Amino acid sequence: MSGETSRLEVLRIRGGKTESLRDVVIKESPVTIFLDDIELANLMCSPKNLDCLAVGFLFAEGLIRSKKDIKKVFADEKDGVVLVELKKARKSPENLIARRFITTGCGKGLTFFDAALDGGRLRSKSGFKVRVDSIPLLMKEFLRMSRLYRLTGGVHSAAICSAKSILVFNEDIGRHSAIDKVVGECILKGIRTTDRIMVTTGRISSEILVKAARSRTPIIISKSAPTDLAVRLATDFGITVVGFARGSRMNIYSNAWRVVIGREER
Amino acid sequence: MSGETSRLEVLRIRGGKTESLRDVVIKESPVTIFLDDIELANLMCSPKNLDCLAVGFLFAEGLIRSKKDIKKVFADEKDGVVLVELKKARKSPENLIARRFITTGCGKGLTFFDAALDGGRLRSKSGFKVRVDSIPLLMKEFLRMSRLYRLTGGVHSAAICSAKSILVFNEDIGRHSAIDKVVGECILKGIRTTDRIMVTTGRISSEILVKAARSRTPIIISKSAPTDLAVRLATDFGITVVGFARGSRMNIYSNAWRVVIGREER
Repeated sequence: MSGETSRLEVLRIRGGKTESLRDVVIKESPVTIFLDDIELANLMCSPKNLDCLAVGFLFAEGLIRSKKDIKKVFADEKDGVVLVELKKARKSPENLIARRFITTGCGKGLTFFDAALDGGRLRSKSGFKVRVDSIPLLMKEFLRMSRLYRLTGGVHSAAICSAKSILVFNEDIGRHSAIDKVVGECILKGIRTTDRIMVTTGRISSEILVKAARSRTPIIISKSAPTDLAVRLATDFGITVVGFARGSRMNIYSNAWRVVIGREER
Repeated sequence: MSGETSRLEVLRIRGGKTESLRDVVIKESPVTIFLDDIELANLMCSPKNLDCLAVGFLFAEGLIRSKKDIKKVFADEKDGVVLVELKKARKSPENLIARRFITTGCGKGLTFFDAALDGGRLRSKSGFKVRVDSIPLLMKEFLRMSRLYRLTGGVHSAAICSAKSILVFNEDIGRHSAIDKVVGECILKGIRTTDRIMVTTGRISSEILVKAARSRTPIIISKSAPTDLAVRLATDFGITVVGFARGSRMNIYSNAWRVVIGREER
C-alpha cells in the first residue's frame, strides 16, 4: 500500500478550525509502454500491476488478441517502464504511429470508430444472466475492496466478477486504466472474461463500453452514470449496462433480459 | 439543454420494485479537431461549446499561446468538427504527428514532461489571494450551476472565477475537456485567467494542474482529491491546491498563503 500513496503536509479546515497534519494522498506516476522496440504510450497511472496495465491497454487498442500473442512482458514499476514483446513481429510498425496520431485524450475516438465499424464482431452471443439480488452483494464486496479509494478518494476501481464473487480487482487514478488493469490481469493469468461481469466505480462512456465488449464481458455495472452513446453501443452489442448501482437500487439501460428479476430461472 | 442530453428507456429497480421509464442520459459525441489542414485529435465529449473545447485543447497542448495566434475558428456542433486556422503556418507540421504519438489516454505523459522541463516558465509570480470564507460561497454557486450533473450524473463541471463570482462555466463528460472548455472560452472572449480561481468537480491530477499552470491560474479548487504529483508540481509552480472543498470544509495542499484565514488583509 505504501507504494501507492504518499504522505503530504495538509492544512485542514473544518468548522472554522485550522489543523496542520500529514495526510495520505494517492500517488501518480508516469509509465511508458514499449511494444517491441516502439515507444507506444505514456500514461499517468497508479504504479502497481503495470504489466497488467500494459497488456490490458494493448488489448483494448486491438494490438494483441490473447496471451498467445505475447512473448514476454517486463515491468519495472520503480522506473515506470513496461516492455512487451510480441511473438510475431508486426508487419508495419509505422502504422502504429499513424494510429496513435488520431487517438487522444480522455475520449479516444479511434477506439470508438473501430468498434462501430467492427460492431458485428463485438456482438455478444452469450446467454449469460445474473440474478438481480446478486448485484447489491457484488457491489458491496467491490466497494469493501476499494481500500485506496477510502484512504485517498483519488482512484477508480474496476473488477471482473462471476455472478457470485470478485475474481480480479484493481484500482488506478484513471478509470480507463483501472479497467485495462483488470482485463490485462485476466489475460496474463488465463482467467476467462466471457460470461463474467465487469464492475466499475467510473462513468460508463463509449470507450469503457468498448473495453467491455472487446473483453467479451456481457454485463457492465457501475455506481455512476452511463452516456447515451455507451447505452446505444451496448444495445447493439448485446451488452447489459447497469448504472447507479447503489444498495438495492439500480437502473438497467440495455439488454435487461440478462438481469433475472423474480422467480425466473432460480 | 436538449442538445446535451438524450431520453432513453430505463428499467429502474428500487426497494424491490421495478419501473420502466424514459430517463435523461448525458449525450456523448465524437469531435474531430483540425489545426490548419491537420486532423489533430478525436475526442469524445459533450457537444456544446466545441470552439472553446478546441481552443482550450490547443492551448493546453502548447500549440497556441493566445487569441492572437488564431486566424479563424469554425465549429460545426452538429457534425462534431472544429477547424482552427492559425495566423502563422506552423514550420513543421510533421512534428505534430510525432508529438501525438507519445501522448495518449487519460494521462497524457508528454504534457507533464513538457511542464516538468519547463517548470520555470510556468511558475506563478502572482500575489493573488482569496479569503477562506469565499471558497464555500464559490463552491455553492458552482454546484448550483451544474445542471447537467444534477440531471444526469454523467459530467464534470469546471469554472474560472474571480474571488467573488463565477466568470466562465462549462460541463463535459470528460474532466479534462471541461477545463479545456473554460480556458478556451476565456481565450476566445478575452477574459483574463491570471489572478483567477479554477474550480472543478474532478480530481486534480498532474495534467489538470498543468492546465491550471499554463492558464496562469494561481488557485485550483476541487470537491475531489488531488494526486501527490499534482501537489508537488503545484508547490513548485506557486499554485494553491484546495481539495475536498465541501461546505465549510477543505484541505489546502500547497501554497496555503494564498488562502487568507482570520483577520489578515481583510
